Amino acid sequence: MIESGNNAALSTRLLARNNKITLTSGLAPKYLQANLIILPSRFASDFLLLCHRNPVPCPLLASSRTPGSATALKSHLPGISDAAIASALDICTDVPLYMVYDDGKLVKSHCSDIAKEWTDDHVAFLIGCSYSFEAALTAAGLPPRHTAMGRNVPMYATNIPLCAAGVFTGGTYVVSMRPYRRADVEKVRELTRPYVSTHGEPVAWGWDAVEKLGIKDINAPEFGDMPLDLDPADDEIVPVFWGCGVTPQLA
Amino acid sequence: MIESGNNAALSTRLLARNNKITLTSGLAPKYLQANLIILPSRFASDFLLLCHRNPVPCPLLASSRTPGSATALKSHLPGISDAAIASALDICTDVPLYMVYDDGKLVKSHCSDIAKEWTDDHVAFLIGCSYSFEAALTAAGLPPRHTAMGRNVPMYATNIPLCAAGVFTGGTYVVSMRPYRRADVEKVRELTRPYVSTHGEPVAWGWDAVEKLGIKDINAPEFGDMPLDLDPADDEIVPVFWGCGVTPQLA
Repeated sequence: MIESGNNAALSTRLLARNNKITLTSGLAPKYLQANLIILPSRFASDFLLLCHRNPVPCPLLASSRTPGSATALKSHLPGISDAAIASALDICTDVPLYMVYDDGKLVKSHCSDIAKEWTDDHVAFLIGCSYSFEAALTAAGLPPRHTAMGRNVPMYATNIPLCAAGVFTGGTYVVSMRPYRRADVEKVRELTRPYVSTHGEPVAWGWDAVEKLGIKDINAPEFGDMPLDLDPADDEIVPVFWGCGVTPQLA
Repeated sequence: MIESGNNAALSTRLLARNNKITLTSGLAPKYLQANLIILPSRFASDFLLLCHRNPVPCPLLASSRTPGSATALKSHLPGISDAAIASALDICTDVPLYMVYDDGKLVKSHCSDIAKEWTDDHVAFLIGCSYSFEAALTAAGLPPRHTAMGRNVPMYATNIPLCAAGVFTGGTYVVSMRPYRRADVEKVRELTRPYVSTHGEPVAWGWDAVEKLGIKDINAPEFGDMPLDLDPADDEIVPVFWGCGVTPQLA
């Protein structure tokens, strides 16, 4: 939904700004949720290119209009104006919790704001998040298993290389996984297909896909929570994999 | 270069229309060269999605404005109008040689036109072709080795899966390969990076990349001509791999 006036997305950001929440899942279900990445400006054009060359794991929604701009964003969504992306936004305070990296190393986590870290040289990027299509799956009677169980989605490192872009030469896809009945996979593909700015339809599915993607152990995801009750001998319930916004964070 | 009035691209198409040429390489060096794919309209929206989800191997330049249109194209290049794509084009005659498939099987090759095969239900797609950036490499003193030798570029099947899109679920990347001195790779990357609508910069390079891409034998490309004098023990000259427009033909 395009933002205008007061809305659930803005209210959620204000709760985050005032440090009233630490998670956003489900708070503004009709709006796109985004992952936030902030980089020094010297990496900005290469990162833009990385997103354009790898749109499924890295669907770029918006970026700082100019370096140093934490409040004015440029839309990268066709047909969506800059103003419609997010109203009264402040990148430095409107995310519940931030992690701060210095030269690739995590130096601070669980920060409630980054007003001190933000400089005129920083560029913010918003990447689509799969939380957005989960509401559609739930509405269609196909809720992702981890949401029903109150757990985080399992995410896996794969061996699928990203298409290189400038300084970003070494990354591989990260995928999120939701198990579904084999008979429901086509329906799940159809339901998520239109969500092109938030990873869209699955990249692969079925037990074959585990090997194809180079996933080492389906029961040991690199990120998120372990899946429960998933059995490679079970041909009825199969893993379904989507591109995941953790990909650009690792690249 | 944008087409307007009489130009080398149009002249080349007229030569093809009149069956005077069978190859196009080098005939209109300042213009984008394209690969042509024609599909029944029921596959058109899935094929568009395949291109959007896999822009490096499948950079979509233009498509039929409506099913059955062999002369009017819609541009998919930002900032390029429909009219600027190709003047006085006839998809059915302006390619030197066509191959005709029926249900995935090649039923006719080396056709000089497809006026009899084209129907109101067909949709044409133009995909960027790496011939376009080779002129830039040559102009910079880094001519691809196969062009200097008068051979076709070697192309390899890889095990990198395409992001699935509708009916297109099983394909993998095809890559083209040009050997370069290791010391020149960064320059080669920079030179081809701007050609975003014709595969852009390489997806991978170096002898490591052969395994990473799942290429079985560097001396036995699946398409094009065998590379000459390429030695895996030679650390000075390394293979450099680009996304290749053969990818969507196989998908």
